[in-house]
Amino acid sequence: MKKFDSIAIVGVGLIGASIGLAARREKLARQVVGIGRRASSLRKAKACRAVDQTTTHLERGVAGADLVIVCTPVELIVVQVQRIVAVVPEALVTDVGSTKQQLVSALAKSLPRNSHFVGSHPMAGGENTGPEHGRANLLEGRTVVVTPDRRSQDTDVQRICDFWAALGAGVLRMSPKEHDRAVAATSHLPHLLASAIAGSTPEDYFPLVSTGWLDTTRIAAGDAALWRQIFLSNHENVLQSLTRLERTLRSMRTALERQDAAKLESLLEQAKRTRDALGS
Amino acid sequence: MKKFDSIAIVGVGLIGASIGLAARREKLARQVVGIGRRASSLRKAKACRAVDQTTTHLERGVAGADLVIVCTPVELIVVQVQRIVAVVPEALVTDVGSTKQQLVSALAKSLPRNSHFVGSHPMAGGENTGPEHGRANLLEGRTVVVTPDRRSQDTDVQRICDFWAALGAGVLRMSPKEHDRAVAATSHLPHLLASAIAGSTPEDYFPLVSTGWLDTTRIAAGDAALWRQIFLSNHENVLQSLTRLERTLRSMRTALERQDAAKLESLLEQAKRTRDALGS
Repeated sequence: MKKFDSIAIVGVGLIGASIGLAARREKLARQVVGIGRRASSLRKAKACRAVDQTTTHLERGVAGADLVIVCTPVELIVVQVQRIVAVVPEALVTDVGSTKQQLVSALAKSLPRNSHFVGSHPMAGGENTGPEHGRANLLEGRTVVVTPDRRSQDTDVQRICDFWAALGAGVLRMSPKEHDRAVAATSHLPHLLASAIAGSTPEDYFPLVSTGWLDTTRIAAGDAALWRQIFLSNHENVLQSLTRLERTLRSMRTALERQDAAKLESLLEQAKRTRDALGS
Repeated sequence: MKKFDSIAIVGVGLIGASIGLAARREKLARQVVGIGRRASSLRKAKACRAVDQTTTHLERGVAGADLVIVCTPVELIVVQVQRIVAVVPEALVTDVGSTKQQLVSALAKSLPRNSHFVGSHPMAGGENTGPEHGRANLLEGRTVVVTPDRRSQDTDVQRICDFWAALGAGVLRMSPKEHDRAVAATSHLPHLLASAIAGSTPEDYFPLVSTGWLDTTRIAAGDAALWRQIFLSNHENVLQSLTRLERTLRSMRTALERQDAAKLESLLEQAKRTRDALGS
């Protein structure tokens, strides 16, 4: 792929720092600039060599960049991309937000026609946040969804896809709408359920918690404010996924009430087949 | 603790083999006999030194044992304990079944008054079954619930508690009823939900499955027939736990429908506090 001169990463948390580490390892640019609100995070990001330079000033940080990757919470992305495009209208800009439809359509309406924004969503992360948890291999073997819309230019989309592929990710193109429907089922609903289980377990029973509960509720440890944003920015699709799940739960409830062994086992068997097919 | 002369383990799967390995390591008996239906499992259990001797014949296997541990699926336990007590009425007998109320009360009604059965439930396991996955340290740091009833003799309960403690487990005494309510919430409900999520994820979205989905659904890979038995033997408590979860889900649904950020974040925050408190 054609290398970049200067990559700016806005938000140097787990994902931002991991992208910086991988981009530097693969020598995808002459320099990587880290931009953040907190000097302490920027210091950590620089100390672990995720970025070459840092600043808390967005406009100054992106000046001169030919690729900008916005890795901030989903509520902030639209305004930040607008500010970035105002400074470097010729730069390729992407983000790593977990939902895409609201964001992409807000930007389609507000950005100048010849700007170069293409949305992305790397399907990776973890409960740990902060640049010190960044890993150059975080995206290796993971999927990054790239979500062009009608206004996206083919060459921009291709360069963004090539960039993620150069970090070791498998790249999938989807419309923002398709993406949001899919992640509602594969990411947001599991999070909602993990939280519902953790939140509804009576305190008296905590001593009997074991591996199964811990696995099933692991993602409920994620940052509540961040997930509140994700849920609200995709609430219609999450509600649809929840409706689908409630149908399955009703079948399970009926099977339990009727002590219908055959039905119950067939529901468990079907779930097991899906789980087995999707790896460990 | 006072050692045993001969321990018989009925069912040499993951749990049975792990108990054998740990009992042999801790030299808790002169010999450990493995009893199973399949010669192939027995061969594996002997090959990995989980047991000293093996047989497919229940009555012959337990003859001479002073401790018998029944590690077979929950549906089989009552009949097997009855057969064991008929052969060695003086032996201490326990089981590792995941539900206790049905089983303990069926045995209370059917066993002779001076028999020595005390139920147990080691809170450990994994998706992998079979003696080859057994580990001497499987129970170290885990909880084993011991579930005496009114008929249990104190000395028997104490010896069973000491046995599990000698394998490195933390021992908790609960009534069979309390135990079943608790595990409905901490084990059975998470399994039901993991299966519901795996079972209701549309196939088109499989490529977007990531860490969160995989963690949340991991236990849905468990054996469907085994879990069908567990659910049916505890269906009333599982239904009560499900009702409690559905209340939480309704609050989440309302918060999403009303786009009530404060309510949603407070639900997520409460779940996070519980999850954080219960370890990794």
